[in-house]
Amino acid sequence: MSAPGQREFFTVKTVSEALTGFRPELRTPVETIALAHALGRVPAEPITAPHALPGFARATVDGFAVRAADTYGASEGLPSYLDLIGEARMGQAPETEMRPGGAVAIATGAPLPPGADSVLKVEYTQSPTPELIEVLRPATPGEGMVRADEDAAPGAEIARPGRPLRAQDLGMLAAAGIAELPAYARPRVAIVSTGDELVPADAPGELPVGQVRDSSAPALAALVHEAGGQPDFAGIVPDDREALTATLRALVKGSDPFGRVVEGLSRGCDVLVVSAGSSVGARDETAAAIASLGEPGIWCHGLSLKPGKPTLLADVGGIPVIGLPGNPRSALVVFRLIGMPIVRMVGGCTEPPPEPSARARLTRDLPSAAGRLDVVQVRLAGEVAEPLFGSSSLLSILTAADGYLLVPEAATGLAAGSDVEVMLYR
Amino acid sequence: MSAPGQREFFTVKTVSEALTGFRPELRTPVETIALAHALGRVPAEPITAPHALPGFARATVDGFAVRAADTYGASEGLPSYLDLIGEARMGQAPETEMRPGGAVAIATGAPLPPGADSVLKVEYTQSPTPELIEVLRPATPGEGMVRADEDAAPGAEIARPGRPLRAQDLGMLAAAGIAELPAYARPRVAIVSTGDELVPADAPGELPVGQVRDSSAPALAALVHEAGGQPDFAGIVPDDREALTATLRALVKGSDPFGRVVEGLSRGCDVLVVSAGSSVGARDETAAAIASLGEPGIWCHGLSLKPGKPTLLADVGGIPVIGLPGNPRSALVVFRLIGMPIVRMVGGCTEPPPEPSARARLTRDLPSAAGRLDVVQVRLAGEVAEPLFGSSSLLSILTAADGYLLVPEAATGLAAGSDVEVMLYR
Repeated sequence: MSAPGQREFFTVKTVSEALTGFRPELRTPVETIALAHALGRVPAEPITAPHALPGFARATVDGFAVRAADTYGASEGLPSYLDLIGEARMGQAPETEMRPGGAVAIATGAPLPPGADSVLKVEYTQSPTPELIEVLRPATPGEGMVRADEDAAPGAEIARPGRPLRAQDLGMLAAAGIAELPAYARPRVAIVSTGDELVPADAPGELPVGQVRDSSAPALAALVHEAGGQPDFAGIVPDDREALTATLRALVKGSDPFGRVVEGLSRGCDVLVVSAGSSVGARDETAAAIASLGEPGIWCHGLSLKPGKPTLLADVGGIPVIGLPGNPRSALVVFRLIGMPIVRMVGGCTEPPPEPSARARLTRDLPSAAGRLDVVQVRLAGEVAEPLFGSSSLLSILTAADGYLLVPEAATGLAAGSDVEVMLYR
Repeated sequence: MSAPGQREFFTVKTVSEALTGFRPELRTPVETIALAHALGRVPAEPITAPHALPGFARATVDGFAVRAADTYGASEGLPSYLDLIGEARMGQAPETEMRPGGAVAIATGAPLPPGADSVLKVEYTQSPTPELIEVLRPATPGEGMVRADEDAAPGAEIARPGRPLRAQDLGMLAAAGIAELPAYARPRVAIVSTGDELVPADAPGELPVGQVRDSSAPALAALVHEAGGQPDFAGIVPDDREALTATLRALVKGSDPFGRVVEGLSRGCDVLVVSAGSSVGARDETAAAIASLGEPGIWCHGLSLKPGKPTLLADVGGIPVIGLPGNPRSALVVFRLIGMPIVRMVGGCTEPPPEPSARARLTRDLPSAAGRLDVVQVRLAGEVAEPLFGSSSLLSILTAADGYLLVPEAATGLAAGSDVEVMLYR
């Protein structure tokens, strides 16, 4: 075990300390994106309506545009009579101007003629002759229509910075004619796997004894996608400090097309994820390699978390570095809890989308240590949550799970029968 | 109003009738996809492990591989002594075979030597000499290791058909060496917008009075994406039955590169969405155009739903056709409730991912009609749900909302102070 590794190993933080204390300031650059590709993207500034929406007073019912004053007191017993003076055409500027005692036939969505202040539903009228409208109910000003600026006033904020765009936000931006907008670039998240036992995920056939495929990298890439990032496989590096240091240095510093580090080149990633070797020795090599990259360096060398204790967090020249445990299940648990929020933060997302969850009743006691956060995988059967146990090296525990629950840091466990909140996988 | 349109208009169904009764049998073809692009994709058959996983007995702790029988009765007061006979190397087949009274140094993840049945943590041992191990605690068979088939037995199901693949599923498939798999093709969802008032969403500048941009199409495309489909803008068609019929016919029948319908060509979409004109007359034209496409034809011409009553559902030669209301807000409400489940179904998804929701207290009474489902947009402030009201033509109600609640078909309303479930937008 190297001297720096040994010293740093004692910096163990709680997950809540990490979430509040390890907050990179780095933000991705702002780029211009097309509305067609903006779902889930994060606006970098408030987007405002360039003009009023819908832009003209518009009927919201099929009927007759009128001046409400001309219909006061109308009833089935004592109708008002209005002259049919024209028709509002869909998609065209009004040809008719209202005059006292007049009515203009209008369909939902058509523009109101100037001077009209309401649209009376066709059901509240009768047409005794082609030129005459019998009004059976008074209209209220504003009835059966929307104002020219009722969906948005000019300059009104129609999408706010920091919140990923939803389907309806795209609709509103489209309505306003905003075909492109400034958004944070997707964070480039480099994923480096280490371990002498690893072979690439696409290695075919049955492997020789001792070798395993790199299952963490594809799963982590999927979580990076879900957090709005762009994963970048940087390959598998053996448990060798020099090889690992060279690979990591090229990623945080920027390198030329031949992989040579060149100072001044833009960096190779916005977030660096190292899926560390599984043994203590391999983790020490990873820690030493990260420590050698630059300042301020390692923020913590472990988390009070089960599974996931051997998690290293570092800041290298402003780039957040996440050293994940070697066990695939632990790595995925830590990346959900710590990594995804960091990717979102770097990508400018200040309002993460809500995650699905469900209340359920726990089937058995879950002992835990005070001060440690336990992440327990569960299978749901109706409103019952059954914990799944097994080595943290087993991915099958995760694939069998519908979600997970947290035994909070302050608790020493959860009793069977407790009402728990299960975070659901989607 | 055309005769078929008129007759069919009276077929109004509840949303629950539509969800249980309007279930297309069409499924997209099965295609082979690469694991790297499989997140959220739907396997078309059970995927099984081709061989045992991890494939060899593996240490899950750093320590010594032993035969548990050699450590029975060991304690700090009366340790057992074992000979250190070798080291298990990471990523390599074991070179040492266990013998009675032997111990092999092993790191987490390395393969157990043949004959070892447990791994004793290094903390439970001392090394008085380089060749000798002092055992302070007995090992239990199976301790500190996973069996060769503990993550998956050969032939075990590791991903099931019908459920979209999650991050951990990709990890498990990667571990098994499955680089590609059979999945349902993404449903191609054609989106046709109708309305004389519509101009394309990317039309620049302030529009002439009477015209509005097609805001529904980009928002619907986003929801199609979320449901795992592939949206295909088929353009804006004027409120003209012949033009609409020609466009729709080409989409459901298949056409050549010049847009000419050719019988026998593969169809142009798997789901057809028509964002209908907003007036009653325009909707009747849409209904007549759809009715003319073929059998079995229109399933319902309206839903007991607010907003969203003027929703048409049809089956044309097996292709589900969804005629949405002209108001963008109504269209999005209906597509979430009815359209997204249909897209998922056609795409082979039988287990849709869970959606986020929250319990909240309603701030005010919500009257409703019995037999009708009301969809009410709400803004959440802590645990308080404030309903948002306004014309269903206003998109701003949707963009201001954090989610929506349902006033069930059986209820005549919800009282202020009720505990409600809010479906959250993400």
